[in-house]
Amino acid sequence: TRQMTKREDREVYVRTTLRELLVYAIFLVDLCIITFGMTSPTMYYYTKVLSELFLDAPYPDTKNTFRGSTQVLDFWRFSENILLDGLYWEHWYDVSATDTTKDDRNILYENRLLGVPRIRQLRVHNKSCEIPPDFQRVIRQCYSEYSPTSEDHAEFSPNGENTTAWKYFSEKQLNGSVHWGKIAHYSGAGSYVDLGSNRTTTKNILAELRDKLWIQRGTRAVFYDFTVYNANINLFCVIKLVFEFPATGGVIPSWEFRTVKLLRYVTPNDFFVLACECIFVFFILYYIIEEAIEIKALKWSYFKSTWNILDLLVIAISLLCIGFNVFCFFTISSKLQELLEDPNIFADFEFLGYWQIQFNNAVAVCVFFAWFKLFKYISFNKTMTQLSSTLSRCAMDIAGFAIMFFIVFFAFAQLGYLLFGTQVRDFRKFMDAVFTLLRTILGDFNFHEIEEANRVLGPIFFICYVFFVYFVLLNMFLAIINDTYSEVKIEIANQRNEFEIADYFKRGYNN
Amino acid sequence: TRQMTKREDREVYVRTTLRELLVYAIFLVDLCIITFGMTSPTMYYYTKVLSELFLDAPYPDTKNTFRGSTQVLDFWRFSENILLDGLYWEHWYDVSATDTTKDDRNILYENRLLGVPRIRQLRVHNKSCEIPPDFQRVIRQCYSEYSPTSEDHAEFSPNGENTTAWKYFSEKQLNGSVHWGKIAHYSGAGSYVDLGSNRTTTKNILAELRDKLWIQRGTRAVFYDFTVYNANINLFCVIKLVFEFPATGGVIPSWEFRTVKLLRYVTPNDFFVLACECIFVFFILYYIIEEAIEIKALKWSYFKSTWNILDLLVIAISLLCIGFNVFCFFTISSKLQELLEDPNIFADFEFLGYWQIQFNNAVAVCVFFAWFKLFKYISFNKTMTQLSSTLSRCAMDIAGFAIMFFIVFFAFAQLGYLLFGTQVRDFRKFMDAVFTLLRTILGDFNFHEIEEANRVLGPIFFICYVFFVYFVLLNMFLAIINDTYSEVKIEIANQRNEFEIADYFKRGYNN
Amino acid sequence: TRQMTKREDREVYVRTTLRELLVYAIFLVDLCIITFGMTSPTMYYYTKVLSELFLDAPYPDTKNTFRGSTQVLDFWRFSENILLDGLYWEHWYDVSATDTTKDDRNILYENRLLGVPRIRQLRVHNKSCEIPPDFQRVIRQCYSEYSPTSEDHAEFSPNGENTTAWKYFSEKQLNGSVHWGKIAHYSGAGSYVDLGSNRTTTKNILAELRDKLWIQRGTRAVFYDFTVYNANINLFCVIKLVFEFPATGGVIPSWEFRTVKLLRYVTPNDFFVLACECIFVFFILYYIIEEAIEIKALKWSYFKSTWNILDLLVIAISLLCIGFNVFCFFTISSKLQELLEDPNIFADFEFLGYWQIQFNNAVAVCVFFAWFKLFKYISFNKTMTQLSSTLSRCAMDIAGFAIMFFIVFFAFAQLGYLLFGTQVRDFRKFMDAVFTLLRTILGDFNFHEIEEANRVLGPIFFICYVFFVYFVLLNMFLAIINDTYSEVKIEIANQRNEFEIADYFKRGYNN
Amino acid sequence: TRQMTKREDREVYVRTTLRELLVYAIFLVDLCIITFGMTSPTMYYYTKVLSELFLDAPYPDTKNTFRGSTQVLDFWRFSENILLDGLYWEHWYDVSATDTTKDDRNILYENRLLGVPRIRQLRVHNKSCEIPPDFQRVIRQCYSEYSPTSEDHAEFSPNGENTTAWKYFSEKQLNGSVHWGKIAHYSGAGSYVDLGSNRTTTKNILAELRDKLWIQRGTRAVFYDFTVYNANINLFCVIKLVFEFPATGGVIPSWEFRTVKLLRYVTPNDFFVLACECIFVFFILYYIIEEAIEIKALKWSYFKSTWNILDLLVIAISLLCIGFNVFCFFTISSKLQELLEDPNIFADFEFLGYWQIQFNNAVAVCVFFAWFKLFKYISFNKTMTQLSSTLSRCAMDIAGFAIMFFIVFFAFAQLGYLLFGTQVRDFRKFMDAVFTLLRTILGDFNFHEIEEANRVLGPIFFICYVFFVYFVLLNMFLAIINDTYSEVKIEIANQRNEFEIADYFKRGYNN
Ligand SMILES: [Ca+2]
Repeated sequence: TRQMTKREDREVYVRTTLRELLVYAIFLVDLCIITFGMTSPTMYYYTKVLSELFLDAPYPDTKNTFRGSTQVLDFWRFSENILLDGLYWEHWYDVSATDTTKDDRNILYENRLLGVPRIRQLRVHNKSCEIPPDFQRVIRQCYSEYSPTSEDHAEFSPNGENTTAWKYFSEKQLNGSVHWGKIAHYSGAGSYVDLGSNRTTTKNILAELRDKLWIQRGTRAVFYDFTVYNANINLFCVIKLVFEFPATGGVIPSWEFRTVKLLRYVTPNDFFVLACECIFVFFILYYIIEEAIEIKALKWSYFKSTWNILDLLVIAISLLCIGFNVFCFFTISSKLQELLEDPNIFADFEFLGYWQIQFNNAVAVCVFFAWFKLFKYISFNKTMTQLSSTLSRCAMDIAGFAIMFFIVFFAFAQLGYLLFGTQVRDFRKFMDAVFTLLRTILGDFNFHEIEEANRVLGPIFFICYVFFVYFVLLNMFLAIINDTYSEVKIEIANQRNEFEIADYFKRGYNN
Repeated sequence: TRQMTKREDREVYVRTTLRELLVYAIFLVDLCIITFGMTSPTMYYYTKVLSELFLDAPYPDTKNTFRGSTQVLDFWRFSENILLDGLYWEHWYDVSATDTTKDDRNILYENRLLGVPRIRQLRVHNKSCEIPPDFQRVIRQCYSEYSPTSEDHAEFSPNGENTTAWKYFSEKQLNGSVHWGKIAHYSGAGSYVDLGSNRTTTKNILAELRDKLWIQRGTRAVFYDFTVYNANINLFCVIKLVFEFPATGGVIPSWEFRTVKLLRYVTPNDFFVLACECIFVFFILYYIIEEAIEIKALKWSYFKSTWNILDLLVIAISLLCIGFNVFCFFTISSKLQELLEDPNIFADFEFLGYWQIQFNNAVAVCVFFAWFKLFKYISFNKTMTQLSSTLSRCAMDIAGFAIMFFIVFFAFAQLGYLLFGTQVRDFRKFMDAVFTLLRTILGDFNFHEIEEANRVLGPIFFICYVFFVYFVLLNMFLAIINDTYSEVKIEIANQRNEFEIADYFKRGYNN
Repeated sequence: TRQMTKREDREVYVRTTLRELLVYAIFLVDLCIITFGMTSPTMYYYTKVLSELFLDAPYPDTKNTFRGSTQVLDFWRFSENILLDGLYWEHWYDVSATDTTKDDRNILYENRLLGVPRIRQLRVHNKSCEIPPDFQRVIRQCYSEYSPTSEDHAEFSPNGENTTAWKYFSEKQLNGSVHWGKIAHYSGAGSYVDLGSNRTTTKNILAELRDKLWIQRGTRAVFYDFTVYNANINLFCVIKLVFEFPATGGVIPSWEFRTVKLLRYVTPNDFFVLACECIFVFFILYYIIEEAIEIKALKWSYFKSTWNILDLLVIAISLLCIGFNVFCFFTISSKLQELLEDPNIFADFEFLGYWQIQFNNAVAVCVFFAWFKLFKYISFNKTMTQLSSTLSRCAMDIAGFAIMFFIVFFAFAQLGYLLFGTQVRDFRKFMDAVFTLLRTILGDFNFHEIEEANRVLGPIFFICYVFFVYFVLLNMFLAIINDTYSEVKIEIANQRNEFEIADYFKRGYNN
Repeated sequence: TRQMTKREDREVYVRTTLRELLVYAIFLVDLCIITFGMTSPTMYYYTKVLSELFLDAPYPDTKNTFRGSTQVLDFWRFSENILLDGLYWEHWYDVSATDTTKDDRNILYENRLLGVPRIRQLRVHNKSCEIPPDFQRVIRQCYSEYSPTSEDHAEFSPNGENTTAWKYFSEKQLNGSVHWGKIAHYSGAGSYVDLGSNRTTTKNILAELRDKLWIQRGTRAVFYDFTVYNANINLFCVIKLVFEFPATGGVIPSWEFRTVKLLRYVTPNDFFVLACECIFVFFILYYIIEEAIEIKALKWSYFKSTWNILDLLVIAISLLCIGFNVFCFFTISSKLQELLEDPNIFADFEFLGYWQIQFNNAVAVCVFFAWFKLFKYISFNKTMTQLSSTLSRCAMDIAGFAIMFFIVFFAFAQLGYLLFGTQVRDFRKFMDAVFTLLRTILGDFNFHEIEEANRVLGPIFFICYVFFVYFVLLNMFLAIINDTYSEVKIEIANQRNEFEIADYFKRGYNN
């Protein structure tokens, strides 16, 4: 009877777990619908056509592009040609052809420019760095690398113009935010000009800036900011084109095209997603209560199970997302009202765009974690147990070995960074070196670059790395897993067959 | 004697199997001759020269090509230069040189254009999508993404021209079919123009279309359709050049070059293949009878063997192919007669080209499956048994693990899609993300793109993926196979040596 | 004492083997000196500068190059610009500058053009193929793919010119040889013109050919042949530039740059190599005698050892090479004499160049095999035994599995060829498909091409291939080796330690 | 009690080791701070902008670049356009715009050119090589490949000019040093010209050199040397642009951009690093004493431990670095003084740049070795022991197998070199072939190049290599490690648990 009771207990357990699994599956499907409803391949194409328009168009003289810009002159080439052509579409097909009507005067004929673009500059002040004593006699100007503390707050107009272009405005005044560029984090401050709403105005503004040498030795970054909206597909694209002027001279271009769906509930499809989101909210409430009960029951021991931690994580992220979504819903409308009333002001969607992206990412991570909980319910099947217990049992050894592995790995990464960092792009920062060596294991590397950077140590470094890490260390992972699998398989073969989920279904079928 | 009988039984069995193997080998050789007779490297070169002619020729002003087209203007550049130059070869070498005679007036001097090309356009109607309330005051036109339901059926000629270019024709009227484009499935309907049979006519037609703004905001796709025939090598190439105009603005070019051998029996070689095809038909009849007998004998248990399922599959595909071949033989001739009588109509080979390709694919899959049946006869040899039983025994474990593996894998793919989908081409759809992650395992990936799309989550995603999937999970496959192989080898070593195929030959040799 | 005798026997054996090893090592070193003396990095640079000169120079109008040629017009662009500029260097730096003196009038200022270049054409005759009945009314000309049997032997001059350019000469008349092109094997026959020895003459010859439409529909290949010699480094480069005109239309360029050292004994270094070659001859004689003795002693059982087969192979290749070297030495001088007497004839070094390359390859293969004999002497050391016996023991299993593996592999290759052959370069022939799938295992593949060729079957094919071959089958190799290694290690651990080579040295040291 | 004593002994041992570990960790952190303080991502960007400026700027006519230069004419194109534009920035943005003030007249507006650039040429004399007897009648000039012994010491001015450009100066006179070029090691001797400090002067100098045919057949290398300094980031870049003129004709460009921080102590950050360096010196003193004591105690047995050898190595490298650093500190200042007094002389920073790079490399290698000593302290933890003893135990087998592996590997490399060396860049030298085959294992190879070089032996070579090395031999590494791991794990499981480091902490916690 003891045997029987055990069997009955187990049956109850199985039934409970199955019910839990079912509920969880519905939750997961709901979550997937929401995430897949949030994004669409169209968003990629939107990013693509806009980025091609601005980044890949060749300059008329040098055939260089925004992406390939390397000198100050390229900045002006971009501004006076590509930017003007890309923003203002006042003709059909080409200049010789018919004018577009006011309603068709859109970027690529389909995308409305919201407000006017803004160009902003950040400068550092002279003497922001120390000239070594040896040179102080011959070099008198020194503009350090950008840092918020060395920003130049002075006016710098050559003839005392009183426009925003030549004055400094703080981040607060501009309502700006920090931008993470390629070589520094730039504050939202600086001098700015709002461009015109048609081609001629903008052209004149830019010509004036160029004539008066707006870009100077102290300039460290110039930003173009604007937002376009496509009514066909109801998407915003918040665009930021950045020219960084490092202290080394030259120009480093970068960009951001944030394609976001700020107005989330317009089409019937959108309302279906809204319904799913409501269901999701109920699910979250349900799980909050469940976990609360469990915490009360188990106290501290609750936090010892990884599954519970996973649950809490998912709930926390979900709450965050719900909160943000509600907040957005109310802000965007008022923002748009304001903008549409005066179309000649700069439309600052940076904040909304940035947080919408963070929201999307949070939801994505949430659903990723949610998937892993499936493994909790998988342990019924014998084959699965065998595999998952192999993984969990060798976790310690894998982790132990991973530490050894990564000491060697990071030693190599540091060596690579120090040996090749000044010459090879993929080793220019320590983290880059880490990723480069990781990619080397997968077969994605550039041996010739390393060899060129150091013709003796480069190849030696490469051979040592491949021999130790690829030939020797990597095989340890396999040895560990292989060995553990054999052990686990023998053990499980010796165990009595427990009441399996399959049995449960068989019984139901026989009755 | 029991021993002896068993031995004799086995001998009979071996002899039968050998005979079966021989027959099957002949079948397989016959099948290979047919498939290799169907295709030839020339077909690749034919596709190559024609696609280079249209896709890689640079536009005279921007040096861009069809493949690189991104704007509406590129469509006109292509039509007015590359297309005209590619279709009409009215001079030897270059314009200053001698005119070609009528018989040499072929594409690349060798390929006859059949009939005239057709250009067709699909448009969506204005108000085919909903403008969000916030924008309804300032944006009044809205052309949704293409879907058959939002096609514009209205005439749209600016001055009331009464040509086919400005009217809508249904798919049935045009005898068209659905085309699977890059961003949508397009119906065979729309407005069309049949171009001229010489350069001047076509040039005028295109100039008129451009002047009257044939491409408008509602345009969602433009198709060029034509077919060329090369008598030297007796091949048709059914060409379709597509410009998709997504709702995002811009242009996405795509193409289809279907090189097919529609007239299958012309040269002596072809008649040899025909003979093989006849033999093939007899084989299929033989196998149909054989399987029918087996089904009758074994009833339902017949369907439990994978080998039998394989047999049925091969037979089914074969019958399909035979049927199609017969159908084709009779249609093509009549089609060609019609066309050659009036060379100024559009030659619609799309249907024939499409199904010929499907036929080729079906035959290819058929022979692929046929090869696998060889493994049925391989079990005689001990080493082979050892290997194949390893594979079959670990199949369950592999499958079980594959499920676990793919849950993790798809969780990563979904995460990748949601995080990078709007920025990176390789993650733009969920299935693309799946393939991208699969290719990452093989070492084909672009880390910098991921990093650029999201500078924080990108690298974290990559490291987690490589660590779990490449270092840990992938090694499980090996552990499973390794362990099973050891087991199987021990077992087989313990078995008594059975009468092997080698013994059979040895005995024959000794007698 | 029996123990002792055995030990003594073994000691004798060890001593003999060591002596043999020493002799063999000297042989190997000698062989390496010869091979490394035969080639040098300079040869690569020579090939490089000459191929860059002709293949990578952009055409003045289209900026296309020889490598990228796709149309008949590109042939003329090449001939009238790149070829003329590449062959005749009559000025320093550029045209505006000083003339070069006669002695400096070399290609790239350093390479003497030997004799004059020859241009040769191969044509097929009209009606060389059958036009399908359906088309016979409208298509009257048909030029098949090239095959020696369909060569056009007729004169084809438009106005009855009586030059070699318009007549057919047989392979024998031209003293030519077969050329293995990209799409066919071309005979050495055809019509030819010998170009001039200065720019103006050649320019006129080419202009005449173009005007009179030398390249016609029946043209299937055009060859440029010439040889340059660099006295600085004493190297010849036999150059062949080929334009193939496939029956599909268009042009497929190919080339051969055979850099060879025909005059082998000039510098002191060369004479050192000559000395080594003499030693090599003695070695070969020694080994011939040794093997002859062994064969006499062992009779048929001699041929059962792989080591002996290897010995015979090395000897055979060596004899061949020696023979060729002697032959060359005598021919080249007379050839050169003849040429230098009349510098205005065509210098045909094709035969010598071809066989010199074959000679180099034969020597390379010879030394490759020679290295493997080292393994014969390695079995003294225990660790080595363990490893080499693992390999030799699992050889059978590996081979057995390799058969299974390759059945699956070739089935995939055939499927790939049939599905993608008409669209994707890497699958255009069956052998290409085989190599492409092999490269896929190593991580070198182009998924997007496959996907584009067939959007449904392409990805399915790829996934199946990767799953079966990469995840499952490849691991079998490892399982087999892994298992065998464990077995061998246990066995060897159980063996008594034999008298090892290390002991031999230790003993010598102690005495 | 014996048990207890042992336990106590062990406790003492653990405590000592922990203290040692702590000291070592501090040492390591200090070392890392120094190395990371020595370099920064800015250095990469500095190298990048300067190399882009000179190497990637297109020539006005051919659009070729320095990197792509192949002919003598490209040398003049570079000198007269890119070099002039890159060195002299006498205008803002472009020529039509304002002049720059004297303080802004910097390369890329930020980098001061130190002194004037120097152009230097190395020539070999005529008759430096032997013309084969067959050719002696027709070829009279012969300029061998470069070697110091065949340098031409004669004057070579056409009209007897008496400038440095046409005279030979020895390495000593020029204070030069050997340069390791792409195809030879060049001495520091030759003829040179110091260019001007403004655009016009330099332009005239170059024009004169060109007119008088400075580059002749005997020219084997031309060097541009100059140094720029950026005060903003306190970095020097020592630039060397090299045109090698091989004896084959043509041009092979190469370059060196040595970005170094010669003035090491300027900013507060620098002084923090200086402090760390002082601490480092004390550490080294401490370790020298420690090791000296150990050596005294252990005598010869000291040198048997790899850990001790590692210690000595680290100490030796450290001492070297310290010495160099002190030397540099004193030389640089005097060097700069001299230069700044007369800005019109050539600033020779080659020596300092070269040794600074060597210093950086030495420090990098030092810290790399230092990391490995961590493994000495890791043996406390059981999992770690298991892993590290696996590695150390299979080291012998791995090494033994590595020998076998590399015999096969080098045999393949030699074969590859001999078969493809004259055609394929990646096989042009034996060492290149070795690296190419190594990269092939990792999946980075170019099959098409091999196939093109030899259409028969290329694919056979590739298949054999992949089959033996990738499929078979590589798996041996795994088999060895796998087997050893199983053994070690069983052994350790059988051992009694020793007093572990974890216990130590637990005890401390309990008390
Ligand atoms: Ca790879």
